[in-house]
Order: sequence, then C-alpha cells, then structure tokens
Amino acid sequence: MSKERNQTSVSELGEFGLIDRLTKDVEIKNESTIEGIGDDAAVLDYKDKQVVVSTDLLTEGIHFNLMYVPLKHLGYKAVVVNISDIYAMNAIPKQITVSIAVSGKFSVEALEDLYAGINLACEKYNVDLVGGDTTSSLTGLVISITAIGEGQKETIVKRAGAKPTDLLCVTGDLGGAYMGLQLLERENEVFKVNPKMQPKLAGYDYILERQLKPEARQDVPAILKKLGIVPTSMIDISDGLSSEIMHLCKNSGVGCSLFEDKVPMDNQTKQMAEEFSINPIVAALNGGEDYELLFTISLDDYEKIKNDPDFTIIGHMTEASEGINLVTNAGSAIPLEAQGWNHDK
Amino acid sequence: MSKERNQTSVSELGEFGLIDRLTKDVEIKNESTIEGIGDDAAVLDYKDKQVVVSTDLLTEGIHFNLMYVPLKHLGYKAVVVNISDIYAMNAIPKQITVSIAVSGKFSVEALEDLYAGINLACEKYNVDLVGGDTTSSLTGLVISITAIGEGQKETIVKRAGAKPTDLLCVTGDLGGAYMGLQLLERENEVFKVNPKMQPKLAGYDYILERQLKPEARQDVPAILKKLGIVPTSMIDISDGLSSEIMHLCKNSGVGCSLFEDKVPMDNQTKQMAEEFSINPIVAALNGGEDYELLFTISLDDYEKIKNDPDFTIIGHMTEASEGINLVTNAGSAIPLEAQGWNHDK
Repeated sequence: MSKERNQTSVSELGEFGLIDRLTKDVEIKNESTIEGIGDDAAVLDYKDKQVVVSTDLLTEGIHFNLMYVPLKHLGYKAVVVNISDIYAMNAIPKQITVSIAVSGKFSVEALEDLYAGINLACEKYNVDLVGGDTTSSLTGLVISITAIGEGQKETIVKRAGAKPTDLLCVTGDLGGAYMGLQLLERENEVFKVNPKMQPKLAGYDYILERQLKPEARQDVPAILKKLGIVPTSMIDISDGLSSEIMHLCKNSGVGCSLFEDKVPMDNQTKQMAEEFSINPIVAALNGGEDYELLFTISLDDYEKIKNDPDFTIIGHMTEASEGINLVTNAGSAIPLEAQGWNHDK
Repeated sequence: MSKERNQTSVSELGEFGLIDRLTKDVEIKNESTIEGIGDDAAVLDYKDKQVVVSTDLLTEGIHFNLMYVPLKHLGYKAVVVNISDIYAMNAIPKQITVSIAVSGKFSVEALEDLYAGINLACEKYNVDLVGGDTTSSLTGLVISITAIGEGQKETIVKRAGAKPTDLLCVTGDLGGAYMGLQLLERENEVFKVNPKMQPKLAGYDYILERQLKPEARQDVPAILKKLGIVPTSMIDISDGLSSEIMHLCKNSGVGCSLFEDKVPMDNQTKQMAEEFSINPIVAALNGGEDYELLFTISLDDYEKIKNDPDFTIIGHMTEASEGINLVTNAGSAIPLEAQGWNHDK
C-alpha cells in the first residue's frame, strides 16, 4: 500500500464504481470467451473441447500475511495457484472469475495493486478475467478464484490412472517456496522486534521468488504433447510432494517407491535448509507451494522422457500392498505415512 | 447449531477428512458432468451448448447474520442466489463449486447443516456439486459459490438488448424478502435486550420464507420457451427493482417508464411495510433479495404474454433521453435516480 499515492476509500466509489475501476483494463484474449464481465454471468463457448473447472479460496492471516506479501504479488500468486490445477489436468486455462471481500482498511489504490497482479498473471498465462464479485468483509481480505480451462477428452489426465511399474516424474525443483517462507517469517519476526533492522534477504532471490511470485507450469502440456506422452496420472504440488504422492496412490490404487537422492532441489533451498537445521528432503516432502507438476508415465514412455531436461524421474509406482515408501540415501525404505509426512502442515 | 448432537472440531478430521464427510452424499445427476469432486479440477462436457458462469461471495456479518439465519437455510440460499444469475441469462444451471472458509467456532456438525442446505438446493434445482475448497478463516464464515450452466447461443439473454417501446416484465412479487429481513432484525434486537422474549413472527410466513429460503425462477426459461418468447434483455432482482432497471437501461442504452401501480406486491409485504411506516414501493424498489426475474420483450410479443399469470407487465422502455422514471399512482413521473433509488443500500 503505497504511501505516496492518494488513498480513496471503497465507499466513495461504491461496489459498481469499484468494479468498473478495477476491471477497466481487462481485454478478452480467447476465442472461447463470448461475454466477459458486466452481465449476470459470463458466456463461454468450448465447442468440441471439454471444460475443466477448479476453485480456491484464500483468506488473510491463513494463506497470506500482508506484512511481507505485497498486494500485487498476492494477486499474481492467487491466479497462478488456481491455473496450476488446470495444467495438472493436462488442460489449458482460458478464463478466471475473481471474487474479493475487503474490510474498510483497504483503499481503492490497494485493491488496484491487487488487480495489477491479477491482470499481470492473466497476461502472462493468456487467461481472460470474465467475472466475479466485489463485496465487504468485517475483517481482512478474502480472495476466491475459479479457473476454467479446456482439454481434449483423450488427453485430460486425472489423479487416478497410475499403474504399478509406472515412472514417477516431477518438473522443476522442490522445497524452494517453503524455505523462502521460512526466511520471510524469520525476517518478519526480527522486524517486529526492531523495525529499524533491514531484512537480510540478499542472495536468496530464487527461493523468495518461489514463495512470493510462483509460476505455474504453462509449458508442460505442450512439452508432453510434443514428446507424445499422455501421463497416466497427474497432480500439482501445492501441499508438498509427500501429500501429492499419497493422493496419486490413493486415487490410483497403487503404492510408490520414491528415491530421496532423485528429488530435485536448488542449491539455495539446500543452503537455507542448512541455516534452519532442516533436512532439505523435509522441505521438499512437506513444504508445499512449489506448483510443480507430479505425474506418472508408462514404463514404455521412458525413452521419450529420459533426456528431457524439464523432467526428473524420482521413483516408480508399485503394487498397493508394498506401500508408499521413501528410499533414503542410506538405502532404507521408510513408509512416508509413518514418518508423519502427511498433508496436515 | 444443535445442542443435542456431539460437536466434532474441524481439526479432528483435517481438511481432506472434512471434505470427504461433507460431500459423501453427493450424486452426479447431469450428463454434462464428466468428473466431479476429487481431482485437481472438475471435467464438464457441454458439447454444442454455450457455457454460462456466475460467482458470488458471501461473508458473515455482511451478507448473513447467524443469530437468526440457520446454517441449513444459509447453504440453501447461497446456492439459490448463484443459480438465479444463470436463469437470468435464460440458461439452465448444471454445476456448482462451493468454497468455504471457517473459523474455529464452527463444528463439523454445523458445517454438515450448511452442506445439508447446499445439497437440498442441488437436489431441487438438479445441479451437481463438482468441486470447491475448504479452508480456515481467522473470523467467521465465508462462502464462495460459482455456478455453471448451459444455454443455446440463440436464446441466451443479456442485460443489453432492450429497445424503446419494449415492455418491462417481472415474475412473482417484490419487496417481500426485504420486509422479512426488517422483521427478523426487529425481533433479533428485542431478543438481544430480553432473551426470554419469544419472537413475534406468526402470520408472516411468506415474507420470512422470502428472506430465509428464497427460490430461484427455475420455471421461467421453460415458460418463455413454451410461449415462444426470447426476452430482449434480462436480469435477476438481487439488489432491488430500481437498481436492476438501471442496469438494463445502462447496458441497453435506453430509458424506462415504470408504473408504481403495476408493481406486484404480496399483502404480507404491504402489511409489514405499514407496521414499519415504509411506503411498500420503497421495499420493492430498494429492498433486494427477491430473486425474481426482470426482463424486456418486444411489443410484438405482447399477445403471447398478456394472459400468462407468471408475469406482470410493469412498464415500458423509452428513448434514453427520456430518462428512467417512476410514474406514481398520482400520475407524476419521478426520475428514479433523483429519488436516491440507487444500489447503495
């Protein structure tokens, strides 16, 4: 919330005035968007494609802390988090609706910052903002986004479908967003004690960006198509690798062997984990918010994927009776569940 | 929140356990729903139909007061409010997603009540619950619903399209939900002063039901089809007749003459308005939450609609230069705007 600019209260504009101001720059980019903002409902035309729909609700104090998250980043991230779910279906996001509830502490200019981030993400991911709701809350900010996308019936990928011997693959690297969050929280605590202290963030750009400005894997459906691969199951990594593996296993009725030494991690992630005396694998398994894609492919597709730098093979699926195991660097197999590697962060 | 039942805390179940419990009775009813709850996104197939999408966000203390709104009613109403927007496009709702954020004060049983209302509305309106998000808030309850429906390209009706001489029509009667709210708020104030006082609600079932358990006009698209009428513009009445007329006029670039003596109101609405010393027309114009449909038709369709008991002709559209006027019972034309009949309730 910039201190240089004039601050306009939301009540000065009213609900409709606010909507007009926040959405004045919205341009429709997709052929499937027939009518956008400004009616009782948006109208879309997907012709022979299937429609894929996902939704998320973010609340202040639970999902974000405005002490260290700029509103523009928050808007960007809120969109990315949602469309990541669409890519996880091997589909392409085309539209979003954005609803916000705000308390009196937010000025129009603050909400413009939020929408600047939302619009930036829409630009980057070629998504149309087609509707929403703007309303009041008694306390804090609530953001609800629904993402809508299109996929071909034959290539939409669900969580169910993995089979024993399928290879488990992941994009990018893991644990960075979590270590970025640890760093921000540490510096925020220091700041609360002594507001004159400058936060020590230098040299950690990558993990800070992973936390504050994550990107969704827009490139993956196209790469998979080019390689001629349709994954047997897929999910995005929002809650941590461990939780997502369990979702794939549960929905597909299989087990999994995950190899600790295969899990890709950036050097900054490892370095920050060391500073916090955290085993880096814990950040990857339980950290969450990486928004990478986790998927399984048939063993027959191994040759197609083995040399592709976008993907890392981190394990393979097994019979359900074999359980879900982390094979450690020392060579022992530890059940992921028994380690407390579950979704309740 | 029943006092007889055991109260289970949400944290005992965890997010995924809670979702499983709240959605265990969900059954898919529509052919267009390919995949529902349980993946990164729902998958829908609309074939040659267009897709219509609308979304609303409701926050505790602003949109509802749990002092006098039972959670089951709230869940029902939250769905109705959303699908009303789909009917207002002359389309048929087929799916909803429901996201909720709850504070620690809500038990699992309380949320089951909320979902019982949501499920009841889904049954009644033949809509599938296909996804959502269940998360925490620091204070109170937030409900975000996105409704998705289908329409034919040729018969989807927007707010824009009304022409001068078109007839302005409305379904049902107006002002009841607002007077029901006044009654509930009055009795709630009495209760806060003296909790032993029994609320005086007898004899006002209709207006209470209009407020607590509104229905969307599911019947209207079918009736219009049977009559062979495609409205030239349409909107649902959520903010009051005055605000909605202005939306139609603004989007269509026309003016309007509304006749006070034509506006349909129930006797209970008029009676309660009298008790509160409110002119009943004010309740209809500014009250909101009636969820009736307001639409315009070509004068050529007058013969088709004139004897239909579902609709009342309450005015006609004019050139924009003539303004938007209420023609009072006394015969004078009052600009709606100048009266302060606007959306800022």
